[in-house]
Amino acid sequence: MDIDLPDVKAEMEAVFARYEAALVSNDVAVLDELFLKAPTTIRYGGGENLYGYDEIAAFRSARSPAGLARTLDRTVITTYGRDFAVASTLFRRDGAPGKVGRQMQTWARMPEGWRVVAAHVSIIAE
Amino acid sequence: MDIDLPDVKAEMEAVFARYEAALVSNDVAVLDELFLKAPTTIRYGGGENLYGYDEIAAFRSARSPAGLARTLDRTVITTYGRDFAVASTLFRRDGAPGKVGRQMQTWARMPEGWRVVAAHVSIIAE
Repeated sequence: MDIDLPDVKAEMEAVFARYEAALVSNDVAVLDELFLKAPTTIRYGGGENLYGYDEIAAFRSARSPAGLARTLDRTVITTYGRDFAVASTLFRRDGAPGKVGRQMQTWARMPEGWRVVAAHVSIIAE
Repeated sequence: MDIDLPDVKAEMEAVFARYEAALVSNDVAVLDELFLKAPTTIRYGGGENLYGYDEIAAFRSARSPAGLARTLDRTVITTYGRDFAVASTLFRRDGAPGKVGRQMQTWARMPEGWRVVAAHVSIIAE
């Protein structure tokens, strides 16, 4: 299995940047688009465990748009073959001093494009 | 991309069970074996951010073997094609009442077998 084929990695980096821009601007339509619409899609969030696309979409719709800006650190995107990737990053928010967030996403290339099939976000003390 | 092909899912379930048995018995050799030996392998743990196989192996070696027993809940293993899988599970420990753990792993089939390429473990209040 080829790891980090340059063209696949470049694709995934662009999709990841699109996701991040949507996250910090709370662009729910794009966030919803980029998660795989399947009951198998799972998102463990900062304080919630969401099983299936419908629970994830409901969470997005209800989320406050305030205070989402963040700074990324140690972002690593690794592609496996042509159809799979993992994106991992730390993040910090001005409103949460002394804390570091960790976001890990697994992406798969589907007929409709790259989609998150699993995500886990958590916050710990620095 | 075929999701949850029965033979692939059965394989992955067996590997996941082997990992879990190694985790609760602190069988460091098996835990080390099952993580991909690569600088791209990442493990965000309950209180640490480990980048690369070497940091993960060092953490395993130094970990206390006490209190690792746990009960799994809502475990979901989903396979994508023949070479990729995500395993997600909640867990609880007797020593941590009122808390629920979340473990998410991304697995890839390598020439040497199925290996974890990324993992994220976190604990939140129930």
